[in-house]
Amino acid sequence: MTDQTQQFASDNYSGICPEVWAAMAEANRGHERAYGDDQWTARAADHFRQLFETDCEVFFAFNGTAANSLALASMCQSYHSVICSETAHVETDECGAPEFFSNGSKLLLARTEQGKLTPEAVREIALKRQDIHYPKPRVVTLTQATEVGTVYRPEEVRAISAVCKELGLRLHMDGARFSNACAFLGCTPAELTWKAGVDVLCFGGTKNGMAVGEAILFFNHELAEDFDYRCKQAGQLASKMRFLSAPWVGLLQDDAWMHYSRHANSCAQLLAELVADVPGVSLMFPVEANGVFLQMSEPALDYLRARNWRFYTFIGAGGARFMCSWDTEKERVRELAADIRAAMANT
Amino acid sequence: MTDQTQQFASDNYSGICPEVWAAMAEANRGHERAYGDDQWTARAADHFRQLFETDCEVFFAFNGTAANSLALASMCQSYHSVICSETAHVETDECGAPEFFSNGSKLLLARTEQGKLTPEAVREIALKRQDIHYPKPRVVTLTQATEVGTVYRPEEVRAISAVCKELGLRLHMDGARFSNACAFLGCTPAELTWKAGVDVLCFGGTKNGMAVGEAILFFNHELAEDFDYRCKQAGQLASKMRFLSAPWVGLLQDDAWMHYSRHANSCAQLLAELVADVPGVSLMFPVEANGVFLQMSEPALDYLRARNWRFYTFIGAGGARFMCSWDTEKERVRELAADIRAAMANT
Amino acid sequence: MTDQTQQFASDNYSGICPEVWAAMAEANRGHERAYGDDQWTARAADHFRQLFETDCEVFFAFNGTAANSLALASMCQSYHSVICSETAHVETDECGAPEFFSNGSKLLLARTEQGKLTPEAVREIALKRQDIHYPKPRVVTLTQATEVGTVYRPEEVRAISAVCKELGLRLHMDGARFSNACAFLGCTPAELTWKAGVDVLCFGGTKNGMAVGEAILFFNHELAEDFDYRCKQAGQLASKMRFLSAPWVGLLQDDAWMHYSRHANSCAQLLAELVADVPGVSLMFPVEANGVFLQMSEPALDYLRARNWRFYTFIGAGGARFMCSWDTEKERVRELAADIRAAMANT
Amino acid sequence: MTDQTQQFASDNYSGICPEVWAAMAEANRGHERAYGDDQWTARAADHFRQLFETDCEVFFAFNGTAANSLALASMCQSYHSVICSETAHVETDECGAPEFFSNGSKLLLARTEQGKLTPEAVREIALKRQDIHYPKPRVVTLTQATEVGTVYRPEEVRAISAVCKELGLRLHMDGARFSNACAFLGCTPAELTWKAGVDVLCFGGTKNGMAVGEAILFFNHELAEDFDYRCKQAGQLASKMRFLSAPWVGLLQDDAWMHYSRHANSCAQLLAELVADVPGVSLMFPVEANGVFLQMSEPALDYLRARNWRFYTFIGAGGARFMCSWDTEKERVRELAADIRAAMANT
Repeated sequence: MTDQTQQFASDNYSGICPEVWAAMAEANRGHERAYGDDQWTARAADHFRQLFETDCEVFFAFNGTAANSLALASMCQSYHSVICSETAHVETDECGAPEFFSNGSKLLLARTEQGKLTPEAVREIALKRQDIHYPKPRVVTLTQATEVGTVYRPEEVRAISAVCKELGLRLHMDGARFSNACAFLGCTPAELTWKAGVDVLCFGGTKNGMAVGEAILFFNHELAEDFDYRCKQAGQLASKMRFLSAPWVGLLQDDAWMHYSRHANSCAQLLAELVADVPGVSLMFPVEANGVFLQMSEPALDYLRARNWRFYTFIGAGGARFMCSWDTEKERVRELAADIRAAMANT
Repeated sequence: MTDQTQQFASDNYSGICPEVWAAMAEANRGHERAYGDDQWTARAADHFRQLFETDCEVFFAFNGTAANSLALASMCQSYHSVICSETAHVETDECGAPEFFSNGSKLLLARTEQGKLTPEAVREIALKRQDIHYPKPRVVTLTQATEVGTVYRPEEVRAISAVCKELGLRLHMDGARFSNACAFLGCTPAELTWKAGVDVLCFGGTKNGMAVGEAILFFNHELAEDFDYRCKQAGQLASKMRFLSAPWVGLLQDDAWMHYSRHANSCAQLLAELVADVPGVSLMFPVEANGVFLQMSEPALDYLRARNWRFYTFIGAGGARFMCSWDTEKERVRELAADIRAAMANT
Repeated sequence: MTDQTQQFASDNYSGICPEVWAAMAEANRGHERAYGDDQWTARAADHFRQLFETDCEVFFAFNGTAANSLALASMCQSYHSVICSETAHVETDECGAPEFFSNGSKLLLARTEQGKLTPEAVREIALKRQDIHYPKPRVVTLTQATEVGTVYRPEEVRAISAVCKELGLRLHMDGARFSNACAFLGCTPAELTWKAGVDVLCFGGTKNGMAVGEAILFFNHELAEDFDYRCKQAGQLASKMRFLSAPWVGLLQDDAWMHYSRHANSCAQLLAELVADVPGVSLMFPVEANGVFLQMSEPALDYLRARNWRFYTFIGAGGARFMCSWDTEKERVRELAADIRAAMANT
Repeated sequence: MTDQTQQFASDNYSGICPEVWAAMAEANRGHERAYGDDQWTARAADHFRQLFETDCEVFFAFNGTAANSLALASMCQSYHSVICSETAHVETDECGAPEFFSNGSKLLLARTEQGKLTPEAVREIALKRQDIHYPKPRVVTLTQATEVGTVYRPEEVRAISAVCKELGLRLHMDGARFSNACAFLGCTPAELTWKAGVDVLCFGGTKNGMAVGEAILFFNHELAEDFDYRCKQAGQLASKMRFLSAPWVGLLQDDAWMHYSRHANSCAQLLAELVADVPGVSLMFPVEANGVFLQMSEPALDYLRARNWRFYTFIGAGGARFMCSWDTEKERVRELAADIRAAMANT
C-alpha cells in the first residue's frame, strides 16, 4: 500500500485527526450565522486566549501562505522589507505571496545557524542599507519550528526581540509547526511568543490534523486594526466560518494539539535513534521537532526510493527529509529505519 | 430553536450535505500527496469536464471572493476595467477584493433589468470612455443566478457575449448559485456557459452543501496560463487539497448538486405561491432561483423579526430577502408563509 | 496660428512661465548632489514652510496623478475607501491610479453641490456601509478649486473636516489649482489648509507655469513617515531633483504663483462678463477660479469649433469648458467672447 | 568650488546639456496639446525609430526606476520572476520598485562575470525551480552598460537571447547608460538591441544631459499593448509632455547623444590611463563605458575625501567609483589623477 510509504514525505500528506473530525461533525448541525459571527468561532478564539494566557486578537485564515502574508502585510508597507532566513518558507515556498499581499515588500535573507536566525544576523541585515534607494527593514520573521526541524529557545526569541526593539522592527512568528516546538521545549505558548516579544503568531492547524486552516494571533493589538477587513478583501474570510473554527476547538480542548505534536516529535526521535549507528548516515540538524534530516549517499537514497519510500531532498546533495505526522505509525518508523540500514549496507 | 428560524437568512448559513460529508470521510484515509497532486483532485476535475462536456481547465479555490477575483485578474490588467451590475457581489460584498487581486482594476457599474445586465447596458458603459485617462473595459462579469434571484437565459448570455466579442471584452460568470440557475432552466451547464460564450466560470460549492470551496473553470485555455501559480501566490492553494476536491466528487457524482438545487428552488417557489394572495405583499423580482424578495411594510418586517425570523433587507426600504438552501424544510416554509400572512393581517 | 485658439482648451496646454524658466537656468550650473540632497530642494521646501506658516513636510513628485495617489495611499490601506466627488479628477481622469498605488482602495462617490462635497454628503457615504464586506471609509479628498471651477471657502473646508474628525476620516486636498483658489478667496494658504483641518495637500505646479512637478505637503507629520521611501519605490524620485524643485523657488519667491493665478482668474472673469448678456448662453457654475463653463446650443459649439477654438465638453450635453492660464491673452478672451456672441446670433 | 570636485560622484550630478536646453526653449512657445498629442512627442518618437532602424513603439517616462519597472511589469505577472545580476540597479537601488509595479514579481539574482550575466548563469537560475511554489522565471534583464562600467558585446546579448528563446523568457535591457555602450562598441543601436533579441529597451536620458526623462522602446509590439494606459495609471504620463519629448529631439538630432557619450567615455579612459602606473592602485573592472572603478587603500580614499573629491564606494572594501559625465572637464580628470597619485604616495 503506497499510503504507508508516503508517511514521511510531508506532514501535509496526513489527514484529519479524530478530534477535529468530531468537532466538524458537531458543528454541522443546522444553520449557523456566517462569516465568523457564530458560537464556534467565539469558542475557538476563547480557547486561544486561554491557551496563550492573554487577551490576544484571533483571526482565522485558510492556509499558512495567506496567514503569513497577511500578517506580514499588516506589519509593513510596500517599501519596507522583511528579514527572514534563507530557508524560510515565505522565501522558498510561497511563490512570492508575501510580496503580492504587501504589494512589493522585499524579503531580505539573513544567515542562519542550524536554520535559526541570530541577533547578529538580524542586526547585520537591518543595518546594511539605510538609504531610501533600498526597502527599509521593518519586520523580522522567525519560523518556529524551523524548516530544518530545529527549535528556537525562549531566550533565543527574546534576544532577537531585543534587537528588533532597538532597531524599530516588528517580530512575526511563522508557527506552521509551533505545536511541535512547544512539545519539544515543554514551555508554555506564552513563553515562546508574547512573553518573548513576538508581535504576531501564525499558528498552523493543517500540519497538526486539520483539513484546512491557520490561526493568526496578534499580541500587539494596534497591528490588528482593521485586520478583519484585510482578511475579507484578500479572500480569506470563510462564509461557513464554523468549519474553520470548530476544528480548533477540537484540537485545543483536552490538549489534542499537544498530544499529537508529542507523538510526531517522538516518532522523529525514534527514527533518529534507530539510524544513529548506521555507518554513512549522519544527522544534518539536531532532531528537535517532527523532522529528521539525514545525510546519505545518492545510491542509498535511490535504494529507498526503489522501496517506495517518499521523501524530499531539497536541502542539498545527499540530504533527505523525513517528516513525521500526528498519525505516523511507529511500526512504519521501524520499517523505514531498517530500510535505511539496508540501503547503506547494500549500496 | 433559533436554528429553524435562521433557515432563510442566507444559503451560507446551511451546513454540509450528506454526500459531501461522505466524500470527505472517504478522502480522509491515510496519507495523500499534497497540493492537488492527488487522486481526488483529478477525479473532481474529470467530473467537471464530463459535466460541462468539454476539456476545460479546472482549479479549486477556498471561497467565492477569491475565485472571482483571481479569475477577473487573469482576464485583465490593473489599468483595465470590469463591467458589472450595480448589485454584483464583486461590487457590493467583496470589500474591494477584485481591485486588490488585480492591483487596481476598476469596476464599472452598468444598469440592470431585474438584476440582469443587458447587451445595451454593456455597450453603453464599454463605449462611454475611450481615452487613456480612464481604465479600459476588458471584462464583463455576470452573476448567474443574480443577486436578486433572477436567471439569465442562454440566449441572454449569448447576446451579451456577442457584444463582448465585438468590443474585445472577455466574459466571466460568477456562479455562486450556478446550480440553482441550471435547475431552474433545465438546460445543460454547457449551454449556459461556453456554448453561450462564457470564458471563465466560478462555480460555487459552499452555498450548495460544501463546507468551503469554489471551482474555477476556464473554457478559454489561453486565459488559464500559469493560473496555478496565481492561485498559489494568492494563498488559495490548499495543502491538503483532497478536502477541497473530494467534496466536489460527492456533489457531482449521482447529481446531488442538481437534486439539492432543485429542492432549494422549489422551496422558494413554494414560499412565493403561499404568499401570492397575501394583501400588501408583492414580489420584487420573479422567483427563479432559490431566493424570494418580498416587498412588505416595515411594521410587518418588525413583526417577523419579533417572531425570530432572520432575513436580509439590503435591497431597499421595505424589501426582504428570504433564501432557501439545500436543507430548507418545507414545513418551515409553510410556517414562514403563515407568519407573513399574520404579519400583514396584524400590522 | 492654431496656438491662439488653443489657449482655452486646458491650462495644461500652456508652457513654462519666465520665473520658472529663469530658476531652471540658474539651477543648471555645474554639478549638484542628486535625489533631493541639493540646495534648491532645501530652498523650495523652506519656501513652502514659510508660505504655509508651519513646519510641514514637503515632497516633490512628477505629476498630479502620482502626487494624489501617493498621498491617498499614505492615508489608507487597500481595504479602505476614499470619499470623493463624482467629478473628482482621481475618479474620472487618473485611469485608476489611486486604486493602483493603494493596491485596491475603492473610491466612493458622493453627491456634490456646484462641484463641492458637503458635510452631509460625506456623512451619508461614510455611514452607508459599516460591515467588513465593504471597504471602510478612511479618507475624504477635496479638489480645490473644483473640476467645475468653484472654490471651497475656509468655513466649508472646516465643516467637512469636522465630520472627518468625528468619523475617523483623514482629509486630503487635491490642489491642482490651489493657487487659483487662493487668488479667488484672498485668504492665506494656511487658512485654506491646515488651519481648516486638511492633513495633506497636493499643490500643483504644472498648471501654474511649471514644465512638470507637484508638491506634496503633509501638515500631519505622522502620515509622512517613510513617505520618501514611498516616492522612491513608486518611481517619483527625480535623480536631478533640482530641476523639479528650483521651479518652485521661481514660482514662490516674489509671489509669481499668486500673480499668475490672479491673471488666469481675471481672464475667466472677463470672459464670463463679456458673454453675460448673450442670449442663449448661461453659466453652468459660478466663475470662481480660472475656468468658465458655458451652456450653449450644439450648433453654437460647432460654430466655435469651425472657428478653430478648442475646448472640452465632458460636462454634459451643450456644456463647454473654457480654461484660462497664466499666459492667456486678454485680447484672445475678447476674440473668443465675440465669437461666442456671433455663434449664438448665427445658429 | 565644490562643484568641480563633485564631477566624479555621479553622472546624475550633471546638469542639462546645451542641445537639450535649446530644444526645451524652442518647445516653450505658446500652447501645445497635452499628454503626448503634440508635434514634439511625434518628432522624438520618429527620431528613435530612425535611429533604431525599425518601427518600434516609443513611450516616455519620468525616470529610470519607473521606466524599468513598467517595462518589466508589461513582461510578467505578479507570480513570475525576473532574472537579473546581483548588482543590477533594479535590485540594489530602486527600493523595490519592480516588485511594486508588478504587484509582487520576485527578482532572482544570477552570478555575473565582470558585472555581466552569462547564458550559463541565466540558464542555471531559470531551471533551478520549476514548481508552482516558487515564482516562474519570465524575464531576463540586462544593464547596458553595466553598473560596473562594462559593456555587453552584441554576440553576448545574442547568446543570452538564445537561452531566453529556448526557455520562454523575455529580454529586457536597462539602458540607463545605453549611449555609453554604443559609443564604446561603435556598433549601431539596432545591433545592440532588437537585432540581438532584445524585446524592450529603457533608454536613459537623464545621465546623458537631460533634466528628467527616459524612453521605453518596444521592439516586440505585442508587449506594448495598452502600455499607454499602464504609464498613465502609474503616474508616468506628463501633461506637458513636450518638455519630456523635446529634449530627446535635442539629444538625438545631430548626434549630440553620441558626441557626449564619447566624451564621457574618453574622460574615463583618460583617468584610467593616468593612474595605470600608480603603485597600489588597480582597476577593478575594465574601463569600457564612463565609469572607473579603482581598488585603493582606505587611507588613500580618505586622503581624496580630505581633498574634497566625492565618489561612491558601494562596490566593496577599498573600491571607489569615479563617474564621468557629458560635461566632465579633462582638466579635472588630470587633477583627480594627480591627487590619486599623491594619495598613494602619502598614505
